[in-house]
Amino acid sequence: MDAPSPNLLDQFAAIVGSAYAVRDPDAIAPYLIEPREKFGGATSLVLRPGSVAEISAILALATRTRTPIVPQGGNTGVVGGQMPSPAGNEIVVSLSRLNRVRTVDPANNTMIVDAGVTLAAARETAKAADRLFPLSLASEGSCQIGGNLSTNAGGTAVLTYGNMRDLALGLEVVLPGGEIWNGLRTLRKDNTGYDLKDLFIGAEGTLGIITGAVLKLFPRPKGVGVAFVGVTDPTAALALLHIARANAGGSLTAAEIMPRFAIETVVRFVPGARDPLTTPHAWYMLLEVSSALSQNAADATLEAIFAEGSENGVVEDGALAQSVQQATDFWRIRETLSEVQKHLGGSIKHDVAVPVGRVPELLTRAAAVAQKVVPGCRPFAFGHFGDGNIHLNISQPEGMDKQAYLARWSDMNAAVHDVVLGLGGTISAEHGIGRLKREMLAEVKSPVELATMRAVKAALDPNGIMNPGKVL
Amino acid sequence: MDAPSPNLLDQFAAIVGSAYAVRDPDAIAPYLIEPREKFGGATSLVLRPGSVAEISAILALATRTRTPIVPQGGNTGVVGGQMPSPAGNEIVVSLSRLNRVRTVDPANNTMIVDAGVTLAAARETAKAADRLFPLSLASEGSCQIGGNLSTNAGGTAVLTYGNMRDLALGLEVVLPGGEIWNGLRTLRKDNTGYDLKDLFIGAEGTLGIITGAVLKLFPRPKGVGVAFVGVTDPTAALALLHIARANAGGSLTAAEIMPRFAIETVVRFVPGARDPLTTPHAWYMLLEVSSALSQNAADATLEAIFAEGSENGVVEDGALAQSVQQATDFWRIRETLSEVQKHLGGSIKHDVAVPVGRVPELLTRAAAVAQKVVPGCRPFAFGHFGDGNIHLNISQPEGMDKQAYLARWSDMNAAVHDVVLGLGGTISAEHGIGRLKREMLAEVKSPVELATMRAVKAALDPNGIMNPGKVL
Repeated sequence: MDAPSPNLLDQFAAIVGSAYAVRDPDAIAPYLIEPREKFGGATSLVLRPGSVAEISAILALATRTRTPIVPQGGNTGVVGGQMPSPAGNEIVVSLSRLNRVRTVDPANNTMIVDAGVTLAAARETAKAADRLFPLSLASEGSCQIGGNLSTNAGGTAVLTYGNMRDLALGLEVVLPGGEIWNGLRTLRKDNTGYDLKDLFIGAEGTLGIITGAVLKLFPRPKGVGVAFVGVTDPTAALALLHIARANAGGSLTAAEIMPRFAIETVVRFVPGARDPLTTPHAWYMLLEVSSALSQNAADATLEAIFAEGSENGVVEDGALAQSVQQATDFWRIRETLSEVQKHLGGSIKHDVAVPVGRVPELLTRAAAVAQKVVPGCRPFAFGHFGDGNIHLNISQPEGMDKQAYLARWSDMNAAVHDVVLGLGGTISAEHGIGRLKREMLAEVKSPVELATMRAVKAALDPNGIMNPGKVL
Repeated sequence: MDAPSPNLLDQFAAIVGSAYAVRDPDAIAPYLIEPREKFGGATSLVLRPGSVAEISAILALATRTRTPIVPQGGNTGVVGGQMPSPAGNEIVVSLSRLNRVRTVDPANNTMIVDAGVTLAAARETAKAADRLFPLSLASEGSCQIGGNLSTNAGGTAVLTYGNMRDLALGLEVVLPGGEIWNGLRTLRKDNTGYDLKDLFIGAEGTLGIITGAVLKLFPRPKGVGVAFVGVTDPTAALALLHIARANAGGSLTAAEIMPRFAIETVVRFVPGARDPLTTPHAWYMLLEVSSALSQNAADATLEAIFAEGSENGVVEDGALAQSVQQATDFWRIRETLSEVQKHLGGSIKHDVAVPVGRVPELLTRAAAVAQKVVPGCRPFAFGHFGDGNIHLNISQPEGMDKQAYLARWSDMNAAVHDVVLGLGGTISAEHGIGRLKREMLAEVKSPVELATMRAVKAALDPNGIMNPGKVL
């Protein structure tokens, strides 16, 4: 498709006003660099609308002129969903100026926010109203609610509170033709027709632009206990998970896993980081329990989990955070795991999930096949054990050339995904499909499912202007 | 549309075998009588397929011959969604023979069941695996999982565990053309394309036939505390709800409300039922707390809620169930509320929800407008306060002719729904649209939303064979 004409670019620019129509290549550049620097993109125009009405006008014009549009939030996505095509014919629409908190209703435990509000701002707003908005991601300072919704973000609190899909009661969406759908319902129950909300959530901007959302709030827990536990292997970790759930029920707010190699890497490269336990263990779990009653109740539940875990021989050692500072330190170990891998050279990444009971098998088998693809590679698998979601990253062998290692990306993916699919798993647990996994989708979805998805896309975006080349 | 020819009926019958093709009017009759006896229906054929393959063959034939199909589960729906048209041109497909539990996976906290498994059987299966399947409805002995999914059933445990939508991880669906979509994923996180599952959930059989589902299981709580509390008015009940949530967090598994009139009716008409508290109160709440730790912990949380509620002057009196029997008795009061209204003559019903903080306003204003429509009518409003979902039923004035009262159904609906919509509420919180509320849908949905729903319907069921005349 041809790039939009200068005249057409002027028409788009006029909608937002020249101050918010970014055409200077230097000013455009930051919109074209994404976190993993894997996806090149080009555009001659970034629009920064200041209202839902402006977005409506942009999409109406885009539909009339068949101009492809790429919505972009905080630009933190790791599968290239927010990147325009390298062809340069697509216009980027940034949601950053839609950053108002519209209303907060503590009595209903809801708030309504613009799509461009950052996750950190949403969490702070909830806290100021003595409520919790539980979505928690490493990128929360930059990522935006609209992007969180469009990718159905997960994170560390899914075990109790669910994915972003579970945290939104209603949406406002500008449809591809420019029509505004006001679905900003603040209700816990509403059975009046098809669930359009969940079609737009996770659609990665391919069906319309989410401009606002009703988010669920929760009471703030009165106590949060955090513990680091050493275990012999992932099978012991699974047993510990079940003990933890049985003792804590819905108050088990996190159950993360990481190998010794991850701890060693953090201790080596993160200034001030310390080994959480006095002796080394092959695997570690970070457990978090939130209590509506008190700090003591949260800690007592963790003590009960320790006791039962020790009795059953699944806990080797454990440390319960004795202060907020220590709890923060424990979490910091977990949160730096994505970043710290950079010090190990190239890393080939997989964001996968399997049924929770099959995580031990996943870890063993994936490590084995990875060694066959690149002998000496170093599995650095960590993540949300309680959800069956593992960031199955694999660092290069020591001393190997980084580019030579990264050239094996597809082969490694194929081998690991084969194991994942054999266990009934998914090749994208929380990051989405974007550009990165679009080709793989046909391999993992049945023709029936792909045809149904295409029928939905054709029904809602008949001209194919919304984020082309992503997902489908 | 013409009724299917005898030859075509024979072709459909041949798919399931003559033993399971019900053509005798007496044998068909039970499929045409629904709980409220409001919706007449006619058909010359009820098919009782025994496999997903048979359902696939039925829908393929239906598509080729443009024969309309009405799926039916346990036939407990109250909006007529499971009833064929009185014209007699539609074929009913009963799911009752698809009643196998396929697999139970306690390690993953999931089970896979056929759509025709009853809710009670699903709950029993979970219990036998030392797990909880939390959906709980008065009709659980008859209603089926497929119907629960197609209507996105709610019930009394939504506060903690969510609606049926939240309790299903995956589906198997036969599409209108006969294609089988195997979406039986057992994953907590899976971001690979559009959320088709949630399109079929709540679609009331208008997009395909759900034949199987992956259901979420939970640890069984070690203690369940139940309390009856007397309060002065719904505003006090709202304050108590917030106190309860602050003390119990996610372990507050039910918060139901009912007026004195409801208690009096139960005591009067239900053999063996007793007043739960020694003195009368204008309003009552039934609170349930589930603890992962122990019965004592559940009771202690309720005691803490009482204490704070009394201190703040919102609790007039309360009784904590001292035994499983007493807890059952408390719940029985709540569960008989739908049935017991029959003794009061005609009842005009509303299944509505508003933002939780606006329930007190809803109850006051709806009672006032109802008196204007039929002076002397007796509001009998009860339900799921914690979800903002009230069964706002209104019994006839004493001594009025029942039919004369019921003739005011539409006027009463209009007045009450006007209040509900003014409070940002919905006219169908958990029962769905079916035939009953189809005409109303255009009044409560925007043209944009209706058009989008119709586009989805046309994309998935282009020939309009699935449950015509329902929802849209």
